[in-house]
Parts: sequence; structure tokens; C-alpha cells
Amino acid sequence: MTAGDWKAAAAAKRQAILDAIPAKWRIQEPIPSPSKLRDVTGYIQQFLSPRELEITENDAADIAQQTTTGNWTAVEVAEAFCHRAALAHQLVHCLHEVFFDAAIEDAKRLDAYYAEYQKPVGPLHGLPVSLKDQFHVRGVETTMGYVGWIGKFQGNKGDPRRGIFESELVRELRKLGAVLYCKTSVPATLMTGETVNHIIKYTTNPKNRLLSCGGSSGGEGALIALKGSPGGFGTDIGGSVRIPAVFNGLYGMRPSAGRIPYEGAANSMDGQNTILSVIGPLASTARSLRLLFKGVLSQEPWFHDPLVAEIPWRDDIESATRALVEQSATDPSKLAFAMMSHDGMVKPHPPIVRAMRIVEETLKKLGHKIIEWKPPSHSIAVDLAVRAYNADGGADVEHHFGLSGEEPPSPILVKLGVGLPHRSAREVASLNVEKREYQKLYMEYWNSTAELTDTGRPVDGVICPCAPHAAVKPQEYRSIGYTAFVNLLDYTSVVFPVTHADKSIDVPEPRTEFLGDLDELTYIDYDAETYDGAPAGLQIVGRRFQEEKMLTLAEYIGEKVKKATT
Amino acid sequence: MTAGDWKAAAAAKRQAILDAIPAKWRIQEPIPSPSKLRDVTGYIQQFLSPRELEITENDAADIAQQTTTGNWTAVEVAEAFCHRAALAHQLVHCLHEVFFDAAIEDAKRLDAYYAEYQKPVGPLHGLPVSLKDQFHVRGVETTMGYVGWIGKFQGNKGDPRRGIFESELVRELRKLGAVLYCKTSVPATLMTGETVNHIIKYTTNPKNRLLSCGGSSGGEGALIALKGSPGGFGTDIGGSVRIPAVFNGLYGMRPSAGRIPYEGAANSMDGQNTILSVIGPLASTARSLRLLFKGVLSQEPWFHDPLVAEIPWRDDIESATRALVEQSATDPSKLAFAMMSHDGMVKPHPPIVRAMRIVEETLKKLGHKIIEWKPPSHSIAVDLAVRAYNADGGADVEHHFGLSGEEPPSPILVKLGVGLPHRSAREVASLNVEKREYQKLYMEYWNSTAELTDTGRPVDGVICPCAPHAAVKPQEYRSIGYTAFVNLLDYTSVVFPVTHADKSIDVPEPRTEFLGDLDELTYIDYDAETYDGAPAGLQIVGRRFQEEKMLTLAEYIGEKVKKATT
Repeated sequence: MTAGDWKAAAAAKRQAILDAIPAKWRIQEPIPSPSKLRDVTGYIQQFLSPRELEITENDAADIAQQTTTGNWTAVEVAEAFCHRAALAHQLVHCLHEVFFDAAIEDAKRLDAYYAEYQKPVGPLHGLPVSLKDQFHVRGVETTMGYVGWIGKFQGNKGDPRRGIFESELVRELRKLGAVLYCKTSVPATLMTGETVNHIIKYTTNPKNRLLSCGGSSGGEGALIALKGSPGGFGTDIGGSVRIPAVFNGLYGMRPSAGRIPYEGAANSMDGQNTILSVIGPLASTARSLRLLFKGVLSQEPWFHDPLVAEIPWRDDIESATRALVEQSATDPSKLAFAMMSHDGMVKPHPPIVRAMRIVEETLKKLGHKIIEWKPPSHSIAVDLAVRAYNADGGADVEHHFGLSGEEPPSPILVKLGVGLPHRSAREVASLNVEKREYQKLYMEYWNSTAELTDTGRPVDGVICPCAPHAAVKPQEYRSIGYTAFVNLLDYTSVVFPVTHADKSIDVPEPRTEFLGDLDELTYIDYDAETYDGAPAGLQIVGRRFQEEKMLTLAEYIGEKVKKATT
Repeated sequence: MTAGDWKAAAAAKRQAILDAIPAKWRIQEPIPSPSKLRDVTGYIQQFLSPRELEITENDAADIAQQTTTGNWTAVEVAEAFCHRAALAHQLVHCLHEVFFDAAIEDAKRLDAYYAEYQKPVGPLHGLPVSLKDQFHVRGVETTMGYVGWIGKFQGNKGDPRRGIFESELVRELRKLGAVLYCKTSVPATLMTGETVNHIIKYTTNPKNRLLSCGGSSGGEGALIALKGSPGGFGTDIGGSVRIPAVFNGLYGMRPSAGRIPYEGAANSMDGQNTILSVIGPLASTARSLRLLFKGVLSQEPWFHDPLVAEIPWRDDIESATRALVEQSATDPSKLAFAMMSHDGMVKPHPPIVRAMRIVEETLKKLGHKIIEWKPPSHSIAVDLAVRAYNADGGADVEHHFGLSGEEPPSPILVKLGVGLPHRSAREVASLNVEKREYQKLYMEYWNSTAELTDTGRPVDGVICPCAPHAAVKPQEYRSIGYTAFVNLLDYTSVVFPVTHADKSIDVPEPRTEFLGDLDELTYIDYDAETYDGAPAGLQIVGRRFQEEKMLTLAEYIGEKVKKATT
């Protein structure tokens, strides 16, 4: 394709997304510019009816409570979220695919089922669920932000699966009773923390449209922040669930590889298995994450995805963690946490430093033991992760950009391995060994904290930033260290909201010494005025396969922090 | 090294193994040649005292019963097995390392502990356990059959871990109370089903010394068959636990990757992770496998090995399987099995065909439903597996042979990837995708059998050969298809004994049509006279992570078959 051709193809697709929105839901008045109105999370409400607001202002858990008991029909809930998602897209460009008609048809079938059997089809009966544009849904395209995928299946022309094939997670969500209605925007390549591609251009942050919604599951983050979805699924190979979750003031989970089925989803560098991309849920509450995660596990995905381990939702671990939490109300020595104020490479901006302080003070006030996290060097982790991402020397990314001839849509995407050496099988194997040795080192460090906690166990979780900044300024997402170490270790992490950047408090302190160039650049990037209002959350990191425990702890900490800050 | 040098180094090491055996345990009389006395499993008994025989003739479970209750001392049990292992080595060359003195010292400490606390240190208190020569034990060398590893640590000169470092499994076995006393022979490279290297030369089969003991955990198989060990651990990347188990009339398990900790063990092509080598136990009974496997899991290896999944021994699955087995006594429709008579590439020899018939008749007589297994093409599985093994174009194997300059010790080891193309990271990724697609196909085939079983579930296990032949004639191990498909799928498999080759019954039928060259060559290889007496067992294959279920079913089938054949 010539430059004119791929630009026209991208524009046509962009228009087609808008055209799929019913005329009655198109915003007629001019939308204020981001500099005039940063935060559109309140602005959106005026376009919704009181009933639509009543429905959409709830979290996924409360909505499912209504729809699985027949109090609310699947159709009215689906319509409300279709409407709100349509509005959200017009405000922040967060959708790649819109299939509201199919959603309403599905919702009708669910209502008919309920009417006939007086019971829901499953725990997500009637719950709208949004999906990152890596999941294949019948009748719907998947572009993953590549112009060269338009009209094809994963970039292949004439592939018979186009428009028919569904990803395993989609099949399971349907069996659970979820209503699928839209797919959300991603950066081309999936390999960055901002959401930018030639189709939708740039997805901005609903709380502050001068900033990024994060990435790569950025459309999910933005849509859920605008309550255009009660919850959805993204993917995370270096932070791509957690970055948009934290940038949008949401909860989000990066489970260990092998719990949620990735089978049949599109991906970048598919088959690179030094660090596996994993699927994780995003939502406005921890209990909503649990509902989605537990729901998927109830489908026994290990019988349908060869990479999923046979580990059902473990009630015993959830109960044991809840018991610890409850006992800690009277005996706070039952729980011990570690906090990592910075990762040795980049020091966080003032809003993140303050978020850490809020959490630390809250937990200390509750009486919990907090230790300082002094892990094996995280720069080793980042180096290993980058080598894994770049193992093919950019061949995959070059191929997919090359399908249309499009330029990388952003400077931040230019250097993704392209031109770097393409590694050999033996080099990949060496990398796998280095990774395993690092994992072992980290594991033993974690074990060693049993000496410091007084609980008889190592720390129950490690609390740290997800990025050195709150929701980032465009083109300034530079640092993957705070998230990628979790992917390298294959640990569980749950993001929770803490506060928002506040220009009146979050004043930068003068610094003259830096941990390195990236630290200095990041320091310079901070701008209290622009960041004002940006969500600033944190993550709690647990060991491999500790999803039940981390969800429970994130819920506990999130609630206590909310109470402390409001 | 010159050819003279590495030969001398190998000979010196060979002599050092013998020298480590106390003079009193050296067989003075000339040992009959294999052609004069094939089976030495009875011959060995004359060198043992009645008490040593009383101890060593038991299986691991019975021995642990005695040693954990203080009925037998750890020292007397250790001495008996050291003696018997020493004899075994002199008969079939099955040991790489002998450390009886350290074992007796450890046993003394265990006895002292028992005397003081009147309880065992763990469930393996006082149980001798043998180890394939991939595990590092302090004070002991690891050569893995490479002359170039003598005096080094994994081929590296001056590595400070030499003689000090212990593999994670070794640490856990010590904590369980096991007594470690010897390491067993392997083929250089680990990548074949016969055990041959320049140090011990060739490990023969105790039941028929004209034949191979199997490989690559061949020393384990031979030693346990001679009751020189009640149980031990091997590794399996293409059949290396199952081949020696089945060639020696034993039980052996290939668990899914991520249950037994491989951390800190030596390996070939370390870091190749398309198909992971896994550790599995070998023993004379299924309940002994369970004892060893369950024991290791009780150590929570997931906190010490980053590749181990947090899946403890699942009593609920064991109980549910036992309940099915017990109910099936009155209602045989509770259990359904599939049988695969051949893999579409190589038809089995008469002893294996007969073993299959024995099992089929036994299960049918019990009333169980048996369906024919018609899986996706196994030749695809073998092709993918071979590509994974050869991804580095033989670079790893060449390197380790090159350390000493030794020639590959057997023609069967010559073509291990050497000279083949060295794959790129992208080719490895493509292979990983092809493998996953094959796994998915196989998984859905397995799911589809729910339509055929009448149990409401897919088949409970698939019974098939482990190789087309009984314990193989030297240089004739050619076919990995019957085992490697399990590794590619990462399924669970448990080998169980069925019968022995019998020249009076196992007469070959004339064949003129063949599935291919390998089938024809294998057909020609058969020789009823030479194979006479060779153990002929089978495997039951379960899905990923179904170890608890497969151990229970293998025990059930093994017992029923034993009853039917004796």
C-alpha cells in the first residue's frame, strides 16, 4: 500500500467505528477540548437517562447481582452500557469494534432463558463485558491496531476463520452469560504503555484528557473509567493490564500465566514463551475482578487451553486470607507487607510518592508490620525482559506494519526491537536459564523475609508503584521497570486506586543526583499542572499463582485506603 | 585432550567407581557372561545375607513403613542397599557415583534422631533413594556421562559449586529423611533410550543382559530391577523415565512439567523450553511412586523452584479416583479407557501386542468400557518434538563432547542435531505455536470421547505401548514416538509392568506391508530368541497434571493384570 492507501484505509475504519454507533447516541454539540475540560467522567452523565445512570454507575458485582436474579433485564443493562460506551468512545476514542445489535440480540436470548427457567445461565448472566481488541468475536473484526489487519484474519487474507472464529475466553464468557458488545483500543504492537494507532489515533485519559489512558489495554482502562463497561479483559506481558488500570483509577489483575485461557486470541510475537502474555480483568472494584476471574475458572479452562493449569478457584486460600484479614483487626501482627519506594532505576513522581505514603501510613495505623523491600536488582529483571521482547529482532512487528506499509504510529513504538539482533535458539535457551536463575534468586529473597515479619511467614505481599508517574503525558511513557519485573517473575499483581495527582500538594523537590539518565528524564517530565487530576494507584505483588490471596488483600487495602482518604 | 587422554580419563573414572565399593562387596568369582546367564536378578541374591535379602526384597512403601516406625534402623537398611547396589553395578554397570560412607553417616544421624525424639524426620525417614546422575550431591561428582565433566562442575573448570552445591530435589529428599547413597548411569547427552557412555560403557538389562536397560534414566531402571534401590528419580524429556521403567518391569511416572523441582539439576540443552525435561520417580510398585511423589510435594517445592506450580498433592482427586475404582467393582461402567494398539508409524513387536491384549482382556473381563484411541496424527507430534530437541542444531551436545574431544560413545548418539540448522528465535516461536495448536487439537479429541464412554466424562486414561519393543537390543533403540508424544502434550503417564517376552508364544507373523521404513526396520529387528525374558510393560496416559488420578489407575490396572497373569 502507498502512504495514501493505508491512511485512507485507517480513516475508513475509523469512520466505520463511528458509523456503527446509532445516530441517537451521537453527541451533537461540540465536545470541549481537553485543555478546556480535562475530566469528562462527569460530563458524560448528561447524555444518559436517569435509569441508564442508575444502571451504569454500579460495579460489575452489583450489576450481576441484579441481572442474575432477574431484577434487571439483560436488555436494559446491555442498552445502557452500549449507550454509555458509545459516548465514551466519542470522548476518548477507546473502541475498535462496536457490535451493539448482536449484544441486544444476545441479551434478549438471556432474558428469554430467565423467563423460561427462572434462573440465570451463569454467574455473569446479563453482565456486559468489554474485551481488548485481541479477542476474536464472531461477526466482528480484529485489527489489534494494525491497518494491515483490516479485512483480514490476524493479517492473513482469505483465512477462513475471519468473522467466524471465537477465542476460547469469548466462548467461556458466553457460557457464563456475559453480554459482549464492544472491543477496545490498543497500541499497534501491544508493546507500550500508551494507546496509539493509525485507526483510532490516540486514546486519552477520561480523568484528564491531556494524559494517556495507559496501554496496551488502554481502551479497556478508559472505557471502564467512564463506566462505559463494568469490567473487561486485557492482556499483560509487561504491564499492559496494570498500566491502564492504575492510570484510570481502577483495579486490575495480572495473574500468573496459566490461569485465564489465552487460546485463540491474537497476539504479538506469538510463541515467544520466555515471558508469556497473560489475560487479566479490569474493573472498578476488587470484588468485580474476583467475579470475572472466578467465573472464567468455573469453566474449567484447562480442558480447553493447553497452557492453562488445572487450578480451580481455591476457596480454601481465599478463606484463609480472609481469616488473616479479619484476625488482623484485633491482632495486626497477622499480616505483614513489604513496600518498595523505588526500583533502583527511576524514582517516582510526587503523586506516586504520596500514594505510597498514604498506603504506608494507613497500614501502619492499622498496626501491620511493614518492611522495606530490598530485592535482587530490578535492572537485571528489566534487561532480561527486554531481551525476551526483542528476541526476534523486531521481525514480528516489522512484518505486521509491513502488511500495510504504515509507519509506526508513534515515536515510542519505533525502536521495538527493529534492527536489533535476531537471537538464535541457543541464545533464547540461555536467556531462559538466566531468567530462571533470577527467579530463583528473587524467590529466595522473598523466603528470607520470614525472618523479618514476625508472622512466621514471608511477607504477604509487596506494595509498589506501577510506574514512576501517574497517568502519563503523551509520548512520555518510558519506563517499564515497575511492571515488567512481575512478568519476568510470573508473579501475581493486583492494582488498586489510591489518590489523584494534586498540583497544590504534589510539588516536585529539587534534585541534582539521579539514578541514571532515565531517572533524570523522568524527573524532568514531571509537571504538576498537567498531571493535576491524574489517577495515582499502586500494585500489590504476590508470588506465582497467588491470585486468590492477592485479590483478597488488594480489596482489604483498597477499602482501608479509601476510608483513610475520604 | 587427545583420544588417548580422554580414554584414560574415562578409564580412571570407571576404576574409581569400582574402587569406591568396599573390597568385601566385590564379587570375587568370575561373573557368567550374558550369553551364559542372561537374567541376574536371581543370581545377585547369593551374595546377600538373609537379613539383607529380607530388607531389600521389599518395595519402598514397605521399607518406609519399617524405617519410619523404628522397626528397622536406617543404618541396617542403608547398608543392605549399599551392598546390593554395589553388586548390581558389578553385574550391569549401572552406577556413576558411589558414596556409601556418607550414606551410613546420614543413616546414623537419622537413627540418633529417632532414638531421641521417637519419631521420624519425615515420611522417607531411612529410605534409601537412588538418583540419576543429573543431580548434584555434596561431596560427589556429576558427569552425566561426559568425560569432559570429570573434575569439573557441569563442564566448567573452577566453578565454586563443585562438590558443594546440591540440587533442590536433593535438599528436599534429605529433609524428608531419605538416605542418598549412589547416582546412576545415563547415556551421554541424555537423548536416547539406551545407556551408554565412555565411563561405564554400557548398562545392560538385569532380566536379560543381552538387552538394554533403557535410557536415559537407565541406571535407575537397572538398579531398581536388581533391588539395589527401592526407588529413585530419573528425568524424562522424550521417554527417559518411562523407557527404563518399562524395560525393567517397573512402575515409573512422567508427571507434567511443574510438579517435581528440577531446580539446580544438570541437564542437556538447558533452557530449551518448548519441551521441558521433567523429573519422575521409578520403583517396583505404584504405591512406592506415590510415596516418593507425595513426599516431594509435601516440601512445597513451589517456594524453591520457580518452574514448579503451586499444586500440592490433591487428596480430593485421589479419593475421587479411588471411589470410582471401588464403585467400578460393582458397576464397571464407572471407568472407561482407551487403547492405542499402534501409533500409525511403527507397529509393536509380538510381546507388546500380547501385553496390550492381556490388559484389554483384563479390563473387558472386569466390565470396563474400552474404546479405540484414534488421536490426531502422532507423526506430527514426533516431528515437533524432534524439532524442539534439535533447535540448537546440536550446539549443546557438540560443546560437551568437545570438552574432552571424546567421540560420541554410540552410533545411536551420532546424529543428535549435529550439523542440523540452528534455529532462530522466530523459528522457535513458530514451533511453540505449532506445538500449542497440536496440543489443542489433541485436547479436543480427548474431550470428544465423552460421547463414547457412557460415563459422562471423556476416557479416564489411554493405555498404549511405551516403545514398539520390549527391552531393546543394543543399538536398536530407534523409535521415540510412543513416549515423546506425551512430552509434547505435557501429559501425565505412568508405566506399569504386564508380562515378559516369551519366545514360545511371541512368534512374529509374516508381514509384507509396512507403515514406513522405521516400521519395517523395527519388524526386522525382532528376534524372539534374543528378546526372550525381556520385560514388556505399558503406560497409562492421562491429561496434564493428572498425576494423582493416573497413579491410582495405574495401581488398579497393574494389580488386576498381575492377578490375571499369575
